[in-house]
Amino acid sequence: MQTQITYPGLMAMEQRKRAHLINSVGGFKSLCLIGTTDNSGNTNLAVFSSIVHIGANPPLICFIMRPDSVERHTLTNILATGVYTINHINENIYPQAHQSSARYPKDISEFNATGLTTEYKNDCVAPFVKESKVQLEVEFKERIDLTINNTIMVIGAITQLYFPEDCWAEDGYLDIEKAGTITCSGLDSYHTTRRLQRLPYAKP
Amino acid sequence: MQTQITYPGLMAMEQRKRAHLINSVGGFKSLCLIGTTDNSGNTNLAVFSSIVHIGANPPLICFIMRPDSVERHTLTNILATGVYTINHINENIYPQAHQSSARYPKDISEFNATGLTTEYKNDCVAPFVKESKVQLEVEFKERIDLTINNTIMVIGAITQLYFPEDCWAEDGYLDIEKAGTITCSGLDSYHTTRRLQRLPYAKP
Repeated sequence: MQTQITYPGLMAMEQRKRAHLINSVGGFKSLCLIGTTDNSGNTNLAVFSSIVHIGANPPLICFIMRPDSVERHTLTNILATGVYTINHINENIYPQAHQSSARYPKDISEFNATGLTTEYKNDCVAPFVKESKVQLEVEFKERIDLTINNTIMVIGAITQLYFPEDCWAEDGYLDIEKAGTITCSGLDSYHTTRRLQRLPYAKP
Repeated sequence: MQTQITYPGLMAMEQRKRAHLINSVGGFKSLCLIGTTDNSGNTNLAVFSSIVHIGANPPLICFIMRPDSVERHTLTNILATGVYTINHINENIYPQAHQSSARYPKDISEFNATGLTTEYKNDCVAPFVKESKVQLEVEFKERIDLTINNTIMVIGAITQLYFPEDCWAEDGYLDIEKAGTITCSGLDSYHTTRRLQRLPYAKP
């Protein structure tokens, strides 16, 4: 049996229930930890499931954030330092990643609170997550305020990429499944993946 | 061993190879077919992997499109009719979904070309994909031109939702894994999922 829900039905739904449903219907999502620091070296870590590729030439990536959430420390730090890290989440660290979404005060680093480890490399002031197998250093490029619902789109350029050597295919494809990267659905469901297949470039 | 690639390294990479790599590093992606029609009833279907939830109240969803691709028929139709459908992709139809990315001329419907079936319901002029288990009717709200790389962000409001009754949890979560929804990585890799677990709301 198929259930149908209308727009008025959605708007009349209890808020948390609607949030669960609407967060589910967009499909499976990218799941990453974003690492930042303020100008005093105080680190911050937040989990995001709204990361999207927006172009390869130049390599650009964006994410959407709510202005009223704990993630605001992330934005403050990005605007202050101009740099952040995006770290893939694997099966070993997803409970810690999830825990980073708790509303910690500004003076608490989610690295300490969750037990994840900071990693610094290549003069990047923002911390990477050492336990992550695929890591991106990203330079802040642009902030777009979405007036329709007061969310914020943050666009950055990928300036450094780190990943396991044996996960990179000849044609450029990175096997993130082999690297252990997981996905999520809704607000709180975590999933591993199993490849069906790669398909050749489609022609009419 | 970890591989490191710098920004200059990325920019010097052969174009297709860079596209494969950069499309992979954002993590697993939502995978949906967007159904549209022009004002004469000529249907169009295109596969997208850049769909993101941007808010639940009101229920808003967006996707990113390149202006120079076959997907342009999708945008033209959305602007003409103001409505489109988002249809989840399952294991039975992913080869057809992939095939819809081929550069068909405007007068060829990807429904006919791929063998997927149009479904019309509830006075929505845009066609749904009958073989899809989770279907959204979306009303066009806003177009944002991303000047940084000439891509286009399309924002819409979810006006109707259809999904299998037995996949909906009491708390609002929709079990899209149970509904057969799959995910993708890179430009051409398709993956089923296996739930690790759902985690409770995180508190400090």
